[in-house]
Order: sequence, then C-alpha cells, then structure tokens
Amino acid sequence: MLAETLAAIRPADLTALAEARAYQDRLTKPRGSLGALEDLAIRLAGAAGVSPPPMPAPAALAIFAADHGVHARGVTPWPQEVTVQMVANFLSGGAVANAFAAQAGVSVTVVDVGVAADLPDAPNLVKHKIGYGTADLSRGPAMTVDQAVRALEAGITVARDLVASGARCLITGDMGIANTTASAALISVFTGKDAAEVTGRGTGIDDETYEHKVDIVRESLQTNGLTGDTAGPSGESGHGSDGLQSAPVVYRQPSEALRALAAVGGFEHAAIAGFVLGGAAARVPVILDGVIAGAAALVAAALDPAAPDHCVAGHRSAEPGHAAALAHLGLRPLVDLELRLGEGTGGLLAHPMVCAAVRVMHDVATFDSAGVTEKPV
Amino acid sequence: MLAETLAAIRPADLTALAEARAYQDRLTKPRGSLGALEDLAIRLAGAAGVSPPPMPAPAALAIFAADHGVHARGVTPWPQEVTVQMVANFLSGGAVANAFAAQAGVSVTVVDVGVAADLPDAPNLVKHKIGYGTADLSRGPAMTVDQAVRALEAGITVARDLVASGARCLITGDMGIANTTASAALISVFTGKDAAEVTGRGTGIDDETYEHKVDIVRESLQTNGLTGDTAGPSGESGHGSDGLQSAPVVYRQPSEALRALAAVGGFEHAAIAGFVLGGAAARVPVILDGVIAGAAALVAAALDPAAPDHCVAGHRSAEPGHAAALAHLGLRPLVDLELRLGEGTGGLLAHPMVCAAVRVMHDVATFDSAGVTEKPV
Repeated sequence: MLAETLAAIRPADLTALAEARAYQDRLTKPRGSLGALEDLAIRLAGAAGVSPPPMPAPAALAIFAADHGVHARGVTPWPQEVTVQMVANFLSGGAVANAFAAQAGVSVTVVDVGVAADLPDAPNLVKHKIGYGTADLSRGPAMTVDQAVRALEAGITVARDLVASGARCLITGDMGIANTTASAALISVFTGKDAAEVTGRGTGIDDETYEHKVDIVRESLQTNGLTGDTAGPSGESGHGSDGLQSAPVVYRQPSEALRALAAVGGFEHAAIAGFVLGGAAARVPVILDGVIAGAAALVAAALDPAAPDHCVAGHRSAEPGHAAALAHLGLRPLVDLELRLGEGTGGLLAHPMVCAAVRVMHDVATFDSAGVTEKPV
Repeated sequence: MLAETLAAIRPADLTALAEARAYQDRLTKPRGSLGALEDLAIRLAGAAGVSPPPMPAPAALAIFAADHGVHARGVTPWPQEVTVQMVANFLSGGAVANAFAAQAGVSVTVVDVGVAADLPDAPNLVKHKIGYGTADLSRGPAMTVDQAVRALEAGITVARDLVASGARCLITGDMGIANTTASAALISVFTGKDAAEVTGRGTGIDDETYEHKVDIVRESLQTNGLTGDTAGPSGESGHGSDGLQSAPVVYRQPSEALRALAAVGGFEHAAIAGFVLGGAAARVPVILDGVIAGAAALVAAALDPAAPDHCVAGHRSAEPGHAAALAHLGLRPLVDLELRLGEGTGGLLAHPMVCAAVRVMHDVATFDSAGVTEKPV
C-alpha cells in the first residue's frame, strides 16, 4: 500500500499554477494585495492540478494518538496516562481541538495507533493499534521497520477513508505524552540540525528537565547510529560541534528515512506521515498542525519529495524544531500565535483562512466583469 | 451623541479579567498553551465585563466608503472613480470582502460617508454622506470639525444599529482611493512618528510616487499646523529630523484629537473611529482591519483611552504605519500575512480565530470534569 501510494503522488501541476497566477491578477483587487493567501491559493491549484482549486471543504481532522517508551526517561512532568485520558476527552468533545473543530465545522476522528492501554469502542474512534507505546528510543529503535510501515499504512488508510467519506481537506492532529522528544530527534535527523537547536519545552518544562531532554534526544541519535559519524566533527549545522559531537546526517533516501523513522519516531509520527502521503496521493490538501506534524512531514518528504506540494503549514508552534522543519519543507505558516498544544489546534485555526484563500478564486469578480477600472500598469 | 457614547465607555473589568485568567488554567490544556488566543479570550472577558465572554457572533462588517481631496495631488495611480466602482462591487457581492464574509458567515453593510458621487439605493447600502469627498488635506483642513463630528456620529449610529439588529461583534472595513495618505498623516500625528516612517505604498506605487506621497503627508501636517513647532528639531521619533523638519506632536486630548482628525483625516476614518466608540459603548468587541482602522482607532483612543480595551487587531498589514499604530494602541495582530487590500479583509480573516478563542472558554472541559490528570506544579 505504501508503494502504491507513493506511485500515485504527483508534484504540483505547472499549468494549473500558471493559470491560477494569471487569474489572480484579473480579480478586483490590487495585484498581490492578498499577500501570502494569493500564494496559498496558487499553490493549491498546483496541488489539485486545476485552477481554481476545489474548495477545501468539508475538512476532516484525524488525531493520531500513541505512547512513547522514552516517557520513562523523565522528559516531561505529565504522566503517561494523560494520553488515554485526553483520548477520552476528545471522544466526549471536551478538548480544545473539539471546540476549534466545532467552530470551523470540521469532523474529528481519533485514531489509536499505539496508546499504552486498550480503549473502549466509541463512534469517532478508529483502531489501528501497532503496539502499546513504542520502545524507548534512547535505548534502541523505538519500533521495528515493519511496525513503522504498518503505522504509515494506518495513516494512509485513514486518509483514504476520510476522502472516500467526502473530505476535501485533511487536518493532522496528534496526542502522545512525550511526543515532542521523538519529534526533536526526527527533526534533527532530517534537517541536520543539532539536538539543542530543535528541542523545545513541549507543553512546559523547567530548565533542568529541558537540559535532560536535549541529552536524551542526542543519546537517541547516538544509540541508533544516526549521528553521521562519517560526516566528521564539522557539522552542516555549525552548532553543538565541539570536536567530540559529530553532526547528524540529513536523511533523504526512502530506505534511510524509514530506518530513521523506526529508530526515533513515534507511531503517531509514522501514521501522520502516511496521512500526508495519502492526502497527497488523493490530491486533497493536508493542513499540518505543529511540531509533531512538521516532523512527520519531513518523513513524508523524504519518502516522496512531491509530498510537501500538497501540504499547508497551518501554524508555527512555539517549539524551535518546528520552524526548522517548516524551513526545510519550504512551507510558510499561516498562524503564528505561540500555540504549543498540538491536537490539531493550529491546523484547525488555519482552515477557515485556507477556505477564504480558495473562495477568492471562485467568488470574486474580475475587473472586466465588475466594470472596475484597473490601475494603469 | 458623541458625548453620550464617550460617557458610556467603560475600561476592562478587572474582576472579569482575573476570573477569565484563572478559568483558563483549569481547562484541559497545558497552561498558556494557546498562546495569544488565551490572552485574547481573557481580554474579551475584561471588555465584556463577564467571564466567559459572550460568543462574538453573529458578526457584522461595515465598509465605510469615502473619497479624498488629496487624490488630486497624485498620491496613487488608481482613478478616484474606483471608490464608487468598488462600492458597486461590494453591493453585488463580487469583492474579496464579500468572499471572506461569506466564508466567515458575516453580514456586509456598505456605508457611504463621503463618496464623490450620488449612489443609487441598494439593500445593503446605508447613506450617511457628509460630503462629496474631503477637501485636499495638503492645502488646508480636509473637513470642518463639525463634519468630523457628524462622521464620527455616523459611525456610532451604524454600530448602534448593527448591535440592535443582533450583531455581537463588529468588524471595520473601508474603501476610499487615496485613504492610506490620510491614514499616514493621522498616524504621524497620533504616534509622533515622522511621515517617512509611517507612509507606505498603499495598494502599490512606484518609488517616485512614494517619495511624493511622503512629501504630501509632511506638507499636510505643516499646512495644518500639526508639526509641533514647539517641540523643536529633535523629535521623539529620532528619524527624519535634519534640523529643519520639526517633530510631530503626539495628540492626546479630545479637542486636539478632533482638530487633527478634521485636518488630515478622511470621512471614513472619522466614521470608523465612531464605529469603534459605538462598539465599545455597547461592550461589543470591534475587530480592526488594517492601516485605515489603525489610524481611526488612534483617534478613538485619543477621545477615550478605554476604547482599545474593546478592540481586537485583526491583522497587521504591509503598511509600515499600521505596525506603529498597533504598537501605540498596545494591540497584537492575529493575522500577519502581508495583506494590503483593506475592505475589512484582515478583520474578516481574524473573526473565526476570535470565535475559536472565546469558544474554548464555553466548551472545553476542566481537568476535574474530564478526569484528566494535571501536571504536577
């Protein structure tokens, strides 16, 4: 299924891009006056292969939930059972993601890809459990390559099912106590930046825990042979290299990407990467949420360089690794309000703007049709 | 009516602010994890005087349209008749503001406060015409103080009428070819910054027109005695002072503010200032659009320092004066995507986020109610 999905992904259509760009200039507004939203609408035309692009609605949020063996290393003050408690909160409609989804008219599906407990059945819960949490990434691979592929395929399946149910836009969400640690490790591997540059305070940790978290991220890369010893002491990032620390290698090959994902990722990272690929294969835009989605999108981009053409960066989170991931993906975030919650909240906030950007291309009159005098060029 | 409105405005309620802040910390999310949206919801509780604040919906956009005598000085390549053409476009639903309003479920009312033509009646058009465009602000006062007060009261009336019709959030919009020139002059007067710092390229002008526009803004301040000769050559801004140029005075007194508004404002600036005051008096939040609204809000703040407590900065436009205005008002913009269109487009994009921020306080479960374990403090 993974191979079939990768084979179906097309890069942005150049004709549709050019048509959309030309059409934007005919609409009754000064050229370029919608700033980043014009670029967004043009990009979505390229992704869809048609101008104007289809309205990205209805949209569907999938919250991929999983636990992490590295939690045992004390990288966060939150107890692990908060993952399963928050899943229950999502299913009863009490979380921020539910409030934002209700506001935006977006459906919410929770996907268990690896919560460390058996969950009772519920109407909006989909079970694709790969394991009861990953293994501790600081002591060895978090999962096997087979598990990583199964988690990727779970994400593809969820994307396919939501699109089959009518979704015309997918939004990524995540829940997993300790998942910013795995995100930092993935971002370090895929961007080549040092652990200290891409590790953040997650949902809020003190200085001591933060230093420990950076050490754990670094340890996970070393333990799993992802520090790129062959690259020598002068890393691409230029940070954290003291002659003893070797720089991370930037993983770009699919087989390397799968191995790195298995080594330091989480089940939800793998599933979100698959979700991105599934959306891209269906030519349905995927709005990325925060740092977990950013890490997952790096995996997707390593598996298929055209995947980011189908992604919209919903927001930029307060996590430093997220900015690094977005820069590497070449994506500009729509919302930048220091959110650091996850769940899909940043993606949900962006969805009305994505709709607004596309709606301009459907609804707005041209200078000709409205009889508005165009500025002399 | 102006005096009565000013008398009705209350500053943020400290009890409601404190209650909202405390309640945010009980909701099932890490403390502070919604970043600027938590601050926004708390501010709106203070403005409304109750926690949680009421949902800011339905919302109503009012687009205040007027023409400007300074257009004759060649500050923009767009012909003046584009104002009336765009009013027709708004009324037939073909402008970007209409597309964004439809997306956000917001009503659109166009208010003629000074278009330089007689407009045919239309269902969504309200007529409060003060004149057929202002006089040329570079040659003398753009309007009389009486006209300025009537335009302010037109804005108050529109706000009152929309609130009486059920609006629970007001969004400012504007249309008026050459109105960024008047905005720059107002912002210079009210922030004390030099003309060159607060004048931008509006909807798009070349370098030569830009230099000319800065000169016109400076000339308008000199002609109208707003350059603060008593302040001497070393201005507060520290820019553009060459020993010949004197620094603008920061106008803070209501009578000075009215005189400055009349001298270099537009009818739509005055009306939007009144609209802000009308919303504030009704304790209904006002989402400010771009640089025209920013200039108008400075007038409103000079008339009543509590007015900004009731404002939300919808976005930050590409105009440099807008950032200066927002900094002076102490408002943080929600959207920052290089829009420079006006019409209310930036305010409309922000409205779903404002709703999302408030909805969190209505819908989200507390740690207690959801049985979610709170992080040990």
